[in-house]
Amino acid sequence: MNQQAYQWGAQPSAIRALAMYAQARAAEIGAENVCNFTIGNPSVPAPDLVRETAMRLLQGDAVALHGYSPSQGDVSVRTALCEDLNRRFAAGVGAEHIYLTCGAAAALCALFHGLLESDDEVVTIAPYFPEYSVFSALAGGKLVPVQARPTDFQPDFEALERAFSQKTRALLINSPNNPTGVVYTAQTMEKLGELLRKKSEELGRTIYLISDEPYRELVFEGEPAPWVPHFYADTLVCYSFSKSLSLPGERIGYFLVPPTVADWERVYLACCGAGRALGYVCAPTLFQQTVVHCLNERAHLGQYAENLTLFAPALRAMGYEVTESRGAFYLFVKAPEGDGNAFSARAKAHDVMLVPSDSFGMAGYVRISYCVERATIETALPRFAALMAEFLAKAEGSAG
Amino acid sequence: MNQQAYQWGAQPSAIRALAMYAQARAAEIGAENVCNFTIGNPSVPAPDLVRETAMRLLQGDAVALHGYSPSQGDVSVRTALCEDLNRRFAAGVGAEHIYLTCGAAAALCALFHGLLESDDEVVTIAPYFPEYSVFSALAGGKLVPVQARPTDFQPDFEALERAFSQKTRALLINSPNNPTGVVYTAQTMEKLGELLRKKSEELGRTIYLISDEPYRELVFEGEPAPWVPHFYADTLVCYSFSKSLSLPGERIGYFLVPPTVADWERVYLACCGAGRALGYVCAPTLFQQTVVHCLNERAHLGQYAENLTLFAPALRAMGYEVTESRGAFYLFVKAPEGDGNAFSARAKAHDVMLVPSDSFGMAGYVRISYCVERATIETALPRFAALMAEFLAKAEGSAG
Repeated sequence: MNQQAYQWGAQPSAIRALAMYAQARAAEIGAENVCNFTIGNPSVPAPDLVRETAMRLLQGDAVALHGYSPSQGDVSVRTALCEDLNRRFAAGVGAEHIYLTCGAAAALCALFHGLLESDDEVVTIAPYFPEYSVFSALAGGKLVPVQARPTDFQPDFEALERAFSQKTRALLINSPNNPTGVVYTAQTMEKLGELLRKKSEELGRTIYLISDEPYRELVFEGEPAPWVPHFYADTLVCYSFSKSLSLPGERIGYFLVPPTVADWERVYLACCGAGRALGYVCAPTLFQQTVVHCLNERAHLGQYAENLTLFAPALRAMGYEVTESRGAFYLFVKAPEGDGNAFSARAKAHDVMLVPSDSFGMAGYVRISYCVERATIETALPRFAALMAEFLAKAEGSAG
Repeated sequence: MNQQAYQWGAQPSAIRALAMYAQARAAEIGAENVCNFTIGNPSVPAPDLVRETAMRLLQGDAVALHGYSPSQGDVSVRTALCEDLNRRFAAGVGAEHIYLTCGAAAALCALFHGLLESDDEVVTIAPYFPEYSVFSALAGGKLVPVQARPTDFQPDFEALERAFSQKTRALLINSPNNPTGVVYTAQTMEKLGELLRKKSEELGRTIYLISDEPYRELVFEGEPAPWVPHFYADTLVCYSFSKSLSLPGERIGYFLVPPTVADWERVYLACCGAGRALGYVCAPTLFQQTVVHCLNERAHLGQYAENLTLFAPALRAMGYEVTESRGAFYLFVKAPEGDGNAFSARAKAHDVMLVPSDSFGMAGYVRISYCVERATIETALPRFAALMAEFLAKAEGSAG
């Protein structure tokens, strides 16, 4: 068998492993006693219009509804999605720029396989979603992580500039960010665009900007996430309806190759060809037709905003250092002892499940997914207080 | 960009290209005047129970229904699917042997990427589904086609034996077959099993048998398709509900690594790891839950059986050589002039769309998809008669 594939199968992600432990523990002591902050599975239901639309479609012509669509997706669906993007962001795109996929993961894989040649490098900013390294490796590429600025987790432009090389094919960004919850500002995007133009010219090859945006609609404080292609012409976008419509299991998303991308027709065809070779065939047709009727809808994202307002200040008041999270239902918290694994292990003993940051390519933190019931946070807060007290007692003991 | 991916994107399959022409022509002269036999898109609706089940599920808990499932699929769904296979085929499988995918294409890709190392060879029997070469190429493998016996399109065992080498990792079969409609007999399967055992021993490496079975339930004459793993222990199965439940657009299928496969746990994990790296995440959850309630259901496959009974004898009566098609809604017909492309072009002039066999890896035939309304066949028959008369007149002219 293929040894690399075996490794990927045999070693589930740290997130999945801890989530499975949380599930087992819930069966043992009751779900209400386990504070499971591991997985980014939306905790709010899909909007009613999703159900209503799907039920209406199911009562129509089954042959038309469930038949193959073109591999890029139904053309009327693609047109309507683009009209929405044009209205909201002046995106300037049409059906010929978009390809519907089974979620953002598939979109990202299609872009990697469409763009990368063997040993091409993809620069990304750590901490980052761990599957990026798996997806890029299968496409023959190499992920080159660059640590974010530890102060605000915006990109470190100097470190970034040093990371680009003759082998760099793309910079991959993810804002709102998993795992930090940080949203890149318009100022950040301006500087990134400048840097990419400069480096592309210096290196004599186009460096694409891949913007992975499953959390685009999940910004709860400050300015919304800016439309990335406005800042850099050679931007490709990945999107998923998993979070905005709470449909992660239905696998519906897209990639976009806007007409500002140099040679966009060929780039689009290469990424379509990659989708073909990856076995995608077409995105699920019922949900193609469903989401297009729900473009003005959002799941009740207000619950996440309330969780953020409750959780982050409470943790800060206890003495935790919490990253400037503004969206994406994640908090990124510095481990008091400076060791994310040790802190995660201590929290586990209190039945609080926190993913250590090492698997996101940065040491010393934990990720908290706050897409949970408010009650889970309320149960967790005294435990976080106890964890801090433990740490302080130990620190004092060492000092004394 | 990646040049190979660009080629895959820029050159759509011959099937898709002709189907698009048929669609354009239908817009021009009316769909009822175009006999489109190109695409294997089911023409019968999904069973009512599919709609009823999906609607019932949609009225339940949306967070649970649309949330991520485990990447292998919901465990209760996997268990129920396996119980059905155990009941029908004494398959001896459980949840730990099955992985739900976005259709048979994704299943096949996961197996290729899980099994193949660079330059490994996959032997298959021509004519074959053209995407096999694309799927295996992305996994770093090489497809080695071996022509079927031209008499009955069962495998040519001697040619097959010569094709195996130190680089052979798998034999890929597809019965009921696309594009011939031929079903492998139990006798064929016995001989294949023997051959594979012999060659695996000779070569000192396990040759896996990959059985691609999207048409398993579509056998309209003679014995049903035998359960392949009973004939050879190291068999991996790909399945899709696209045809049996008329759900091709919804992308729901699976792969199976039965416990008879040597080292099955590791093989299964490698293929799961491949699915992870291919960006599959999980199969669409609504249809995971829907198909499991429809395991005793079939779309109205009787229409295909009636089409076969009408179509094949009528063509034979006109003088066409028609392969012994018993299922899979395809007829494979010898071009009277011996040139499939020329015959397809002549038929196109009569607005009859037939896919030339060259893209299936065998010259001299056309494929007819008879998953169409009966009226389409009735419209086509006089045109087939005219095509044969044209050919005979020309042949007589040459002779005279």
